[in-house]
Amino acid sequence: MGDKGDKTRERIRTEAYRLFAEKGFKEVTMTDLCQRTGLSRGGLYRYYSGTADIFAEILSEEYSIHGRMEEGESARAILEDMLRAVREEIMEKELSLSLAIYEYASLGNEELFMRINQRAKDRWSGLIKYGINTGEFKKTDPDQVSELILYYYQGLRMWSRIIPFQEKTAENYVRTVWELLV
Amino acid sequence: MGDKGDKTRERIRTEAYRLFAEKGFKEVTMTDLCQRTGLSRGGLYRYYSGTADIFAEILSEEYSIHGRMEEGESARAILEDMLRAVREEIMEKELSLSLAIYEYASLGNEELFMRINQRAKDRWSGLIKYGINTGEFKKTDPDQVSELILYYYQGLRMWSRIIPFQEKTAENYVRTVWELLV
Repeated sequence: MGDKGDKTRERIRTEAYRLFAEKGFKEVTMTDLCQRTGLSRGGLYRYYSGTADIFAEILSEEYSIHGRMEEGESARAILEDMLRAVREEIMEKELSLSLAIYEYASLGNEELFMRINQRAKDRWSGLIKYGINTGEFKKTDPDQVSELILYYYQGLRMWSRIIPFQEKTAENYVRTVWELLV
Repeated sequence: MGDKGDKTRERIRTEAYRLFAEKGFKEVTMTDLCQRTGLSRGGLYRYYSGTADIFAEILSEEYSIHGRMEEGESARAILEDMLRAVREEIMEKELSLSLAIYEYASLGNEELFMRINQRAKDRWSGLIKYGINTGEFKKTDPDQVSELILYYYQGLRMWSRIIPFQEKTAENYVRTVWELLV
């Protein structure tokens, strides 16, 4: 699939993300996606076999930091970028996928979620180890701190759909993670 | 309502808690509760006007530490008890109310959740201030640490329904909170 195909796939995922965030997983149909993307049914199915297929791919996407560490970039600079992204996500309550994740998980996709969870943990603990090695981060237990970073974030994402958040709540998160590491 | 009435109310809440944890909020009916408690419809409605009434009361229940602080008990001892309770909760994935909370919140109960959230924060920050005053806890920002304690817990509760947890995950939580405070 060429560049054009990649772009179409990305457009489908972007629209699907919004729909999943809005309605959860179960209520989103391929027909909804045809409407949002302007693709025909046949066109859409050329790229994805169903909403589960798209959702799994969205969940698996992540900001990769591997290359930046390979190139010897500063651990603090990478951390700053990651926290900036997280902070924006926390404040965008309408883009929280928590409900969709719940619904999708209730259909039994334990292995996928275990994999995603492990990868997210590895990503954070990789950065923490890297920062400890470069001398930029304090010596902490990478596994312990990674779990805090991930589950604290998940709790915020879930509650951001339930109650209104002040900017302060996102700031506290960023500040806590920063102070723990740097 | 006398002692017997209080006991019946408690029994209703206990059974309702299990049902909400199992099925979420929306699918639980007063009929389910009659079956579980053995009460007649009339009997049940004498105590609660509906499932929303029971759920709101369950959410509002909490382990009170006010009296223990008034009596000058050790902050560390109170913290140990609270963390022991939390640790047990994390491992009991089948008793997580996260899904029910989500469903109930989607029916629009923002104010109730704001109140519950604020009270939980006040409770933790109260203990933290108390421990700082008695010299048992490190000097931290009580608001900042309370948020970490609460949302990290909520994230764990949500994910405990999605993936299997190892004992280690609950231990990391307890250890992190302890190290932050003591």
